[in-house]
Amino acid sequence: MAQAIERVATVRPVSEEEATGRVAEIFADIKRTKGLERVPNFWRVLATHPEHLDMIWSRLKTLMHPDAVGRQSPLDARTREIIALAVSAANGCTYCINSHTTALRKLGVDTETLGEILAIVALFCTTNALADAYQVQPDVLPPLD
Amino acid sequence: MAQAIERVATVRPVSEEEATGRVAEIFADIKRTKGLERVPNFWRVLATHPEHLDMIWSRLKTLMHPDAVGRQSPLDARTREIIALAVSAANGCTYCINSHTTALRKLGVDTETLGEILAIVALFCTTNALADAYQVQPDVLPPLD
Amino acid sequence: MAQAIERVATVRPVSEEEATGRVAEIFADIKRTKGLERVPNFWRVLATHPEHLDMIWSRLKTLMHPDAVGRQSPLDARTREIIALAVSAANGCTYCINSHTTALRKLGVDTETLGEILAIVALFCTTNALADAYQVQPDVLPPLD
Amino acid sequence: MAQAIERVATVRPVSEEEATGRVAEIFADIKRTKGLERVPNFWRVLATHPEHLDMIWSRLKTLMHPDAVGRQSPLDARTREIIALAVSAANGCTYCINSHTTALRKLGVDTETLGEILAIVALFCTTNALADAYQVQPDVLPPLD
Amino acid sequence: MAQAIERVATVRPVSEEEATGRVAEIFADIKRTKGLERVPNFWRVLATHPEHLDMIWSRLKTLMHPDAVGRQSPLDARTREIIALAVSAANGCTYCINSHTTALRKLGVDTETLGEILAIVALFCTTNALADAYQVQPDVLPPLD
Amino acid sequence: MAQAIERVATVRPVSEEEATGRVAEIFADIKRTKGLERVPNFWRVLATHPEHLDMIWSRLKTLMHPDAVGRQSPLDARTREIIALAVSAANGCTYCINSHTTALRKLGVDTETLGEILAIVALFCTTNALADAYQVQPDVLPPLD
Repeated sequence: MAQAIERVATVRPVSEEEATGRVAEIFADIKRTKGLERVPNFWRVLATHPEHLDMIWSRLKTLMHPDAVGRQSPLDARTREIIALAVSAANGCTYCINSHTTALRKLGVDTETLGEILAIVALFCTTNALADAYQVQPDVLPPLD
Repeated sequence: MAQAIERVATVRPVSEEEATGRVAEIFADIKRTKGLERVPNFWRVLATHPEHLDMIWSRLKTLMHPDAVGRQSPLDARTREIIALAVSAANGCTYCINSHTTALRKLGVDTETLGEILAIVALFCTTNALADAYQVQPDVLPPLD
Repeated sequence: MAQAIERVATVRPVSEEEATGRVAEIFADIKRTKGLERVPNFWRVLATHPEHLDMIWSRLKTLMHPDAVGRQSPLDARTREIIALAVSAANGCTYCINSHTTALRKLGVDTETLGEILAIVALFCTTNALADAYQVQPDVLPPLD
Repeated sequence: MAQAIERVATVRPVSEEEATGRVAEIFADIKRTKGLERVPNFWRVLATHPEHLDMIWSRLKTLMHPDAVGRQSPLDARTREIIALAVSAANGCTYCINSHTTALRKLGVDTETLGEILAIVALFCTTNALADAYQVQPDVLPPLD
Repeated sequence: MAQAIERVATVRPVSEEEATGRVAEIFADIKRTKGLERVPNFWRVLATHPEHLDMIWSRLKTLMHPDAVGRQSPLDARTREIIALAVSAANGCTYCINSHTTALRKLGVDTETLGEILAIVALFCTTNALADAYQVQPDVLPPLD
Repeated sequence: MAQAIERVATVRPVSEEEATGRVAEIFADIKRTKGLERVPNFWRVLATHPEHLDMIWSRLKTLMHPDAVGRQSPLDARTREIIALAVSAANGCTYCINSHTTALRKLGVDTETLGEILAIVALFCTTNALADAYQVQPDVLPPLD
């Protein structure tokens, strides 16, 4: 009765071997910046539209790898990855949950801490739903700087 | 042409004055634990179902105010509130965005850092959408502990 | 600092006075079927595209007012409205939450029961998030009829 | 071209054999309360963070199995599971849709009734989208009790 | 460690061979209208509730295949399918993303154009998140016709 | 009973008068590129984090105003704005729905066409929900180029 699902990229990912020009440069930059031996599937799929690959990678590099662009971030690497996982979990994105869980483990986050992060994510999915469902009005807010 | 929207709680919030018994105790605990002078609207609305108020408050207190229950969290207060804001922003919950932005400001988070948090939230809303839209397959995953 | 939000329909709703032809017939049918004295704003906005109004109303009438079309539903009126509220709350739709909360109150649902419905909605927003975030695999499933 | 997707829990689920202490007690309680022979994967994954397992199970037990805690719910078991399915479908959570469809079938819900539930869920996903997209203003609301 | 996911329809799809009466007519209409040799799985699953199949197919036929019902649409076929893909991508619906990507390819949309569509989808997932997260107020709006 | 909602930006928007340096340049570029007399609130809020403003504007300019950067887009201006509206409606983002409805009206889209766009958006919110809820398996897919 149960059948294996088939899930495919809707485009054929660009392999590292066939990449040339700007795509090849970005592939090299991704591996160097992230310390990876292979280019993740996400970037290989985006490479079917090189200009878009460039836009997304440069933005992600700036925000998630500030050192690589000589920039100071007010957030440390672990906090940045925790935000990435929290958003991916709230949005239910399988690929990104896998990817950022892996990144957090590389940063030394253990199963208990992962559980604590996801417990807080799940708690606020509940309170978000309740605040919306009851249409709770904002409390008085502090002045803005 | 433009009219002011009316948004109402779908129930009448319980005021601090009319709260009795278990609800009054929880209201006092919320103000003490959070260092607030008034009970936020969210909790006053939940108080229309005292048993549910109890469930949500005890869970939130455990996860977000671990000191108050003699518990150690692997995450510090700022990181916990950042997760709360990231989830609320990803879910688009107005009340909770206000509430957790306010909490972060109390913890000393400035406008630039808030901008950095939301820039990362927004980045991963983009990559989540792309990973889903292209149906990117997970990369090889590391072993689990 | 705080300003009142302005939220407007992106089209000018059709008033009952200016409705003619098929739109006037549907407006009359909505009031008769739902026992209302005025046509709710939702239907007045849809009336800017009469063919679409017809599609949505005939589908909603069939599913939510089966008696009016001589049809038997396996679900009673209260259960149908509970589904409507649960979906609207999960989707965070202000207008629909108001509308279906009102409909449930007309059916005799009190504040405690409303609280119980929303407590269950919120519980499953949490478990949905956790099942997705941990990427839990389905258990063995029963055969389908 | 098409490849089988791989989807994995991001943690290693706790087996019934290795469970001890509080986790073993909760596993036994889950099987007894739900009348199951095996602990579903969802609970085995949560067991990697025993305190969180406890929080989620006690809340779900209270709301979904009120008899087991000597509590009266204003909603019957079938209605409670219908809410669970409606929310899980609106949120698109595969694991939970499977789980609650199975639970509804055990309660005697047939394919036609399942179709009616999902038809109503889908109808309100449409009307939610339209109410938001046209930014429809709430109608005048009834007084709250 | 990694296991193949199993994903199943929660009902047994109706095969073309066993379809009779109204379902058989709609199956034939779907194949004729869409120029397909087989009835897609989506419609075979909906056929477990023939009345719902009828509602969804007649609505989709009217909006997406206006020629087949002697209707004029203000949008051409390519634009209609682009909307379908954009919505399905924003909602993260795997089946529908596959289905509408396939339909767009049949209409001659190439990989570069698909990339451009998804780049715009992803851009607005970012700006939507930011507008919500910062709770940006609407600008002054033009008068409505 | 009903109270006016208060919704505020969580930061104080940067006014055109106080903008300097890179922010002032981008503000001028936005007005010139979009043919506007005032900088919309969205950009004034992003300006609290000038580097992020730059990232988002340059990406939006490239994708939505290709002429301004000497680029050819495979999609025309109306189709691009239709995608923007479809995504914003699917995501339920009030500010962006207003903004892109306004942009479409400037491009000559009338109320009937707007209704057709939103009817298609709403149709696919329904079919997305059904495909997910029934967990429909992808049909056989065409080869990728």
